[in-house]
Amino acid sequence: MRTVQVQVGKNYDILIDRNILKDSGTFIKNVFKRDNVRAAIVSDSNVAPLYSEIVINSLKSVGYETSLFVFPAGEQSKKLSTIEKMYQHFSENSLTRKDIVVALGGGVTGDMAGFAAATYLRGIDFVQIPTTLLSQVDSSVGGKTGVDTDFGKNLVGAFWQPRLVIIDINTLDTLSNRVFCDGMGEVIKYGCIKSKSLFEKLENNNIKDIIEDVIEECVSIKKDVVEADEKETTGERALLNFGHTFGHSIEKLYNFSTISHGEAISIGSCIITRASEKANLTKSGCLDRIENLLKKYNLPTTTDKSILDIANASKNDKKSVGTSIGLVLIDDIGSSFIYKIKLEDIYNFINCL
Amino acid sequence: MRTVQVQVGKNYDILIDRNILKDSGTFIKNVFKRDNVRAAIVSDSNVAPLYSEIVINSLKSVGYETSLFVFPAGEQSKKLSTIEKMYQHFSENSLTRKDIVVALGGGVTGDMAGFAAATYLRGIDFVQIPTTLLSQVDSSVGGKTGVDTDFGKNLVGAFWQPRLVIIDINTLDTLSNRVFCDGMGEVIKYGCIKSKSLFEKLENNNIKDIIEDVIEECVSIKKDVVEADEKETTGERALLNFGHTFGHSIEKLYNFSTISHGEAISIGSCIITRASEKANLTKSGCLDRIENLLKKYNLPTTTDKSILDIANASKNDKKSVGTSIGLVLIDDIGSSFIYKIKLEDIYNFINCL
Repeated sequence: MRTVQVQVGKNYDILIDRNILKDSGTFIKNVFKRDNVRAAIVSDSNVAPLYSEIVINSLKSVGYETSLFVFPAGEQSKKLSTIEKMYQHFSENSLTRKDIVVALGGGVTGDMAGFAAATYLRGIDFVQIPTTLLSQVDSSVGGKTGVDTDFGKNLVGAFWQPRLVIIDINTLDTLSNRVFCDGMGEVIKYGCIKSKSLFEKLENNNIKDIIEDVIEECVSIKKDVVEADEKETTGERALLNFGHTFGHSIEKLYNFSTISHGEAISIGSCIITRASEKANLTKSGCLDRIENLLKKYNLPTTTDKSILDIANASKNDKKSVGTSIGLVLIDDIGSSFIYKIKLEDIYNFINCL
Repeated sequence: MRTVQVQVGKNYDILIDRNILKDSGTFIKNVFKRDNVRAAIVSDSNVAPLYSEIVINSLKSVGYETSLFVFPAGEQSKKLSTIEKMYQHFSENSLTRKDIVVALGGGVTGDMAGFAAATYLRGIDFVQIPTTLLSQVDSSVGGKTGVDTDFGKNLVGAFWQPRLVIIDINTLDTLSNRVFCDGMGEVIKYGCIKSKSLFEKLENNNIKDIIEDVIEECVSIKKDVVEADEKETTGERALLNFGHTFGHSIEKLYNFSTISHGEAISIGSCIITRASEKANLTKSGCLDRIENLLKKYNLPTTTDKSILDIANASKNDKKSVGTSIGLVLIDDIGSSFIYKIKLEDIYNFINCL
């Protein structure tokens, strides 16, 4: 088994291996070292039928009391009314501050279960068991939790670190190709911003042959960034938003349907790199390599939405501060920096036609 | 002006004086040292007409943009739907992570505005301007924020420290006698658990003559406790719950209406001290002194609810852990400790008839 330790607040481990869901109870008990623990497992209607029984049995085998909260799969569930139902479930199952929440599923599940754990009784412990590539390499690590509102995606949330992350690579086998590739958008992002060697490994190999290495490398990059800037205050963590500013705009323009997060940031990465190459801020040729790698995983590199609409939609981004915003650019594959720009100049910067 | 500094996370000051609301903008700007700040003032329908204009004008005079969110006064507003309206207000007024929330009012206002600030954009800064005695000596200091749900009072919340607390003693002049005395319940509590001299000062003086001293002393006690145990993990902070376990039971039995928080903990303090004196855990005579002091401020010392109902209602207390609960007892005026008891033994312990 591979273990990556995150040193922030209370340290926690990220465990990576095949076929370890069945041992999750043992891993979890090793962390909390408490008896008489109640674990509320939060999962969605896709994942619960596949994996909740394995996790529940494993928790029961170490003496935990368990309960299961299942919500309808999909981003449309990611709202405060679902969180309120989780609170009710926790309360009805008498969860106290010594008990735990276990998030079993993809990004939506982890974000919401984490937020509910962060705010129930002013915060109880939680464990992430991510089952999609996207959540394994990105959202389950680093403590960002959140929920959408009518006025913005992830507008509400908390920084709340998990106490353990259990990545069972076998869960990727049940993903559709599209959902798997959705995660590849974030994997390629890590190569772009921090690791030329990862990027080249992805160019030169079949992902199925190197998946353990790739997940470990992505998680290690994320861990380094989170340790340097847990709460997005110094700027380092902002580098993880490569492709995200315009990716979020595109998701918004599609009303967060028909296009996935990974697909949107794939397009966003191309928009920003096309602009920065044109402005001589990025080494020539990077755009071509990024586009080719994204296409290898069936990820889109263009959109029929207009650059003007995309620029305008980015002006309300959560990361904008006053009248300007920091865009993440790369100077070369594997090396990234923040480029501050006035909101009114965004359109001219990304309009490369 | 009296200043008490709280050293937890980012340090913050508690400013205590008369007639300082009009200078709140200057105090706030001194903390954040930023230009172009937007401040969303959160207040209720009782307090906003009295004081919001003074605060808004003061913030404008230092160059802040302001907006005002007013909700209907009363505990029945303390729910997630009100929080959701706050998020909407913050979003519509384009609050970013560099902007701030200002809670202007009593405990309900501070608890809710603090929780909304803790969770909007994963946390933005907030300032407390408490205008009741209860919120000045207790709830505005220490970072507990929260909201009620159908399944429990303050069941949902976060630890989120304010960046500044501004206590204008003149705001107490507009309180009804009952609301003022509500706060005296907590003031007397501080004497019971931590300061014989405060208790004796309250016995021997008219509160109006010593109010500045008393507020400063209460806030200083709370500060010490919070610094020692910010997140209620070591047990020290639990001492602040003297009278609260059975006080909460009584509030619950009255459905959180007709009886105020201070009145309920007043009765709770008498129940617990009657029991501990009988059990020889508390020096004889303490109950008499506490009852007399509470009566001086028109606070009730008995209830028509049965001891059995009160004992049963306490079993679901948020502070219970597994099958036991820590009760706060005093061994003498000014000295307190935790007494762990099994849930099933509560009735026999407090049944002194």
